[in-house]
Amino acid sequence: MHRRGPAGPINPRHRGMAAPRVRARIGAAGRVLPGQFCAALDWLLPLGPWRPISTFFKASDLRVELTSEPKPKPEVGQLQFGKHFTDHMLTVEWDRERGWGQPHIKPFQHLRLHPASSALHYAVELFEGMKAFRGQDQRIRLFRPLMNMERMSRSAARASLPPFDQLQLLECIRRLVAIDQAWVPHSDSASLYIRPTYIGTEPSLGVSRPGHALLFVILSPVGAYFASGPMGAVGLLAEPRYVRAWLGGVGDCKMGGNYAPTILVQDEAVRAGCQQVLWLYGDDHQITEVGTMNIFLFWTDLQGELELVTPPLNGIILPGVTRQSLLDLARKWGEFKVSERSITMADLLRGLREKRVREVFGSGTACVVSPVSHVLYQGKNYPIPTMENGPDLTKRFLKELTDIQYGRVPSDWVLPV
Amino acid sequence: MHRRGPAGPINPRHRGMAAPRVRARIGAAGRVLPGQFCAALDWLLPLGPWRPISTFFKASDLRVELTSEPKPKPEVGQLQFGKHFTDHMLTVEWDRERGWGQPHIKPFQHLRLHPASSALHYAVELFEGMKAFRGQDQRIRLFRPLMNMERMSRSAARASLPPFDQLQLLECIRRLVAIDQAWVPHSDSASLYIRPTYIGTEPSLGVSRPGHALLFVILSPVGAYFASGPMGAVGLLAEPRYVRAWLGGVGDCKMGGNYAPTILVQDEAVRAGCQQVLWLYGDDHQITEVGTMNIFLFWTDLQGELELVTPPLNGIILPGVTRQSLLDLARKWGEFKVSERSITMADLLRGLREKRVREVFGSGTACVVSPVSHVLYQGKNYPIPTMENGPDLTKRFLKELTDIQYGRVPSDWVLPV
Repeated sequence: MHRRGPAGPINPRHRGMAAPRVRARIGAAGRVLPGQFCAALDWLLPLGPWRPISTFFKASDLRVELTSEPKPKPEVGQLQFGKHFTDHMLTVEWDRERGWGQPHIKPFQHLRLHPASSALHYAVELFEGMKAFRGQDQRIRLFRPLMNMERMSRSAARASLPPFDQLQLLECIRRLVAIDQAWVPHSDSASLYIRPTYIGTEPSLGVSRPGHALLFVILSPVGAYFASGPMGAVGLLAEPRYVRAWLGGVGDCKMGGNYAPTILVQDEAVRAGCQQVLWLYGDDHQITEVGTMNIFLFWTDLQGELELVTPPLNGIILPGVTRQSLLDLARKWGEFKVSERSITMADLLRGLREKRVREVFGSGTACVVSPVSHVLYQGKNYPIPTMENGPDLTKRFLKELTDIQYGRVPSDWVLPV
Repeated sequence: MHRRGPAGPINPRHRGMAAPRVRARIGAAGRVLPGQFCAALDWLLPLGPWRPISTFFKASDLRVELTSEPKPKPEVGQLQFGKHFTDHMLTVEWDRERGWGQPHIKPFQHLRLHPASSALHYAVELFEGMKAFRGQDQRIRLFRPLMNMERMSRSAARASLPPFDQLQLLECIRRLVAIDQAWVPHSDSASLYIRPTYIGTEPSLGVSRPGHALLFVILSPVGAYFASGPMGAVGLLAEPRYVRAWLGGVGDCKMGGNYAPTILVQDEAVRAGCQQVLWLYGDDHQITEVGTMNIFLFWTDLQGELELVTPPLNGIILPGVTRQSLLDLARKWGEFKVSERSITMADLLRGLREKRVREVFGSGTACVVSPVSHVLYQGKNYPIPTMENGPDLTKRFLKELTDIQYGRVPSDWVLPV
């Protein structure tokens, strides 16, 4: 984590881990961004004649239409994840002939979709999850939002959806959050969840690159993701019969199709007395992810060294913003070894037998960190002493991250709204 | 293929390969069907109290609302796959509190969807593809439609969508086709494509079993699927870097998420001068499917026997209705060996080298059969002598199937509308 000094609201220096692709400066809306230019060319090439880059939508074109019927806001104590929505939403339409339309902030409303829309038949769709936090100073901050924009761009390329200018979308989102800022909870255990969504709306049934698309963003005030609260430990069902993602697939993109198949398995976990699924991969039962989170193991490795380890970004792992942030924090501390490498169930069970395991936890935007209390694997329950060990590291991560998110410590990981 | 004699429009005896689950008789709408009862219990169990089976929707409750503005019908010669839609559609809504609503045939129109609908975020969605054919006798026939209903039920269970009564849905579809019968092309090279679709409409962002769902059916008059016409040969890109489906996944269900990731690869195939993708699996590069079709190889096997072979239904193969029909026809003929077993690229290339390969073709509802002229694999183009060999078997299958579909020969595989 390098501090780069103060900067304006959509300055890309705030990008945290954003890839080198985004190198433009604030205000460069009309400029050709080299990385995006190439992405656009990839996209447009099969369509025939070259199209000017200016088809990217711009925040300066935002059309804002405010609601005349603001809704009552739920009590912070009553918040359930993703069930309440704010007064406004952002929509931007794209079609092959006219390119991007004008971005539009408007009253929250139903979408009108052609019944043949490719999102509904072929899951031409992707989403992001990010949050806005209200500090005690009453300022609202986004956490490393350009990492979400960058991942969203990657998902779009893989889903055959047209590219967009990441900085322009982020600025539109910032405007949307500013307009609905009264919905950002006055609480340091709650936040405003931001859900950018991008769908193919091609109204025909051939399985092909959509000629119509819709990018929209909705906002939802949220409390703790798990009913058990921020530090309630979860049990995991590790069931090798089900595989979440595979090499050569799209498990590293936030495409909708990665999620529907997990619901049945999640229900099986609940029936087995667990809260989440631990996804395994390969004949050696590699540990990959937990439910909709990345997974971390804090233990003493076989060389006797204290190690924080998480599976590597090998194509089947979702590159989580929280995952990256925990790695960045731990590497900055420099107090123990930090590894991205494959871990198998056999490694974990041996570690448990030899009492080398200190903490196991999941990480994600929705939950931040989530301690793990046991794993049910091949019919046997393996207790994990996460809670018995504090959980010191899990709590430290939670504190460090929320201190940054709620503005209790200064950081260039946050973007003020 | 066993002939079972004449029967009424939704008699399950017309079901062709439908699994034993559907054992009810026509008119048994109110009866509890044993297989479905269990499926329903599986579904309802996690929801708490037992709910009566009568929540299945019934065709006798159909509400029909006809359009006052019928659209002009396209010329048969102008038809493009899935781009034109008929005047009406079928919708049925489900929610956890009230169960299934009344099935509704109404003017073709846009859907109004909550922007958090689980179909748009997590691809809680599935579809079917089936066809209605107009014979020279002006009668309209569906082809083995209960196989589609059966597969749709299986997909629904895997997608965590609630069960429905297959016979009741089929009768609703029959009514819809009857209402839009003027849209069934007067041509024996065109047909009316039927697209049942089933989506989660849960308006919240938790990844969980939806409490709201929408089943809808739209109709589209179609000509030949490939621009090259019914017997234009296609070239295939076999690219092991991309994997369509995997063991432990949902490749054997018609869920939307299986399709979006294929579009990018299909575009890569086109750029490489091919028309379709040949999907490989595993380190030994097993042949699995072609684009959106199953694949067949007709050759002399290593024992010198003439053999028709297609990959087995091992969990990564879509169990196609046309696939099953070709297997059934070939087994009835009894003129050559018919096998469902794994074939690798090495097997195919050796067969080509030794000049044992006669025909390779895809099969699917949209295209019926589609001959293959070459495979591009690891940078090398391998010609396949399908067209040089007639293609006798491909043409025979096309004739036998279309004779049945267009009513030129009697068969209990068709259901009159």
